Amino acid sequence: MAVNYPNGKKFLAESHMPKTTKKKDLIYSNRGMTLEEEINSSNEHYLSSGRAVIHKKPTPIQVVKVDYPKRSAAVIREAYYRQSSTTDYNGVYKGHYLDFEAKETKNKTSIPLSNFHEHQILHMKRCILQHGITFVLIRFSFFNRVFLLNSSYLIDFWEDTMNNGRKSIPLAFIEEKGIDVAYGFNPRLDYLDAVDKLLEHTNK
Amino acid sequence: MAVNYPNGKKFLAESHMPKTTKKKDLIYSNRGMTLEEEINSSNEHYLSSGRAVIHKKPTPIQVVKVDYPKRSAAVIREAYYRQSSTTDYNGVYKGHYLDFEAKETKNKTSIPLSNFHEHQILHMKRCILQHGITFVLIRFSFFNRVFLLNSSYLIDFWEDTMNNGRKSIPLAFIEEKGIDVAYGFNPRLDYLDAVDKLLEHTNK
Repeated sequence: MAVNYPNGKKFLAESHMPKTTKKKDLIYSNRGMTLEEEINSSNEHYLSSGRAVIHKKPTPIQVVKVDYPKRSAAVIREAYYRQSSTTDYNGVYKGHYLDFEAKETKNKTSIPLSNFHEHQILHMKRCILQHGITFVLIRFSFFNRVFLLNSSYLIDFWEDTMNNGRKSIPLAFIEEKGIDVAYGFNPRLDYLDAVDKLLEHTNK
Repeated sequence: MAVNYPNGKKFLAESHMPKTTKKKDLIYSNRGMTLEEEINSSNEHYLSSGRAVIHKKPTPIQVVKVDYPKRSAAVIREAYYRQSSTTDYNGVYKGHYLDFEAKETKNKTSIPLSNFHEHQILHMKRCILQHGITFVLIRFSFFNRVFLLNSSYLIDFWEDTMNNGRKSIPLAFIEEKGIDVAYGFNPRLDYLDAVDKLLEHTNK
């Protein structure tokens, strides 16, 4: 794949990198936008409007070999993906620490627990003990519906599974206990609106 | 550099990767441990003891080309470092969102502002507006002394520099306004103790 990078720079500023999300947004509107792209786009809106500071964590990569061409950016020539020990998103909103994971499923009746990993559950438990606000955003792509589910429910299902419980969370349960996240123009996915409802509920 | 990776795995668990920090810690004690290694080691201690959940963010890397050898982990063959748009560390502690950057200097009288970047200052300002706790950990390596400095001071110096102010923060200022961070056995660098003092001061 040929990509022209500006010469004479060791690090490339983010603003110079191709922004897939934005391009797709312009050209294809909602078609083909993944849940991750929708969340990233919403986070950019939240950031620029001063509503919250939430970022997706970069994928951890173990770098083994790097070339340093003259007058060019350093090129990584051998590296490996590592498994993250946390969830994908965190940040700060009105004094609250937010921490969450996003998953989408093509299933029509439930989301399989195999979408989540042991280390994510452990991380969420640890954050709850520190009074962080933790949740999952779940998209049922067939219905194009997104829900915010307090991670305490996910943890309950996870621990039931360990004791031979069911291996998925039913949509009916998520409809009852979760909070609907509305699609809009900008932000694309106003999940902080759902977080407000979660906070109201928690404070009661 | 020859490294043996286990075959048949797409992702490598963190526990299987070489842990430089720990090895260095065992063999060389404090000698040669960078500030980053000291913080990572302290964060591991905080995590396992349940005191806080704080992680270093992975370096963002733009992946361009990946090979998928049979029965082996995916190998990244072309990738570039990107500049992060945030600080290096964040997490949750007693319901507070913590966000900070760590820098060390060999200077004896001040830390040059060139150690910090515009986007880090902007990120810290945004976090403050959301009532996050933001600071910098500064190590003067010659004296082996570490200070926690509320980032509001850093922002003041930064903005003075924009108006042709001085280009560094004097050690004398940091000694007066910062909080001493003590070295110990485990955690190596008990910076949460300094955060407690910062929180006390903020609540007064």
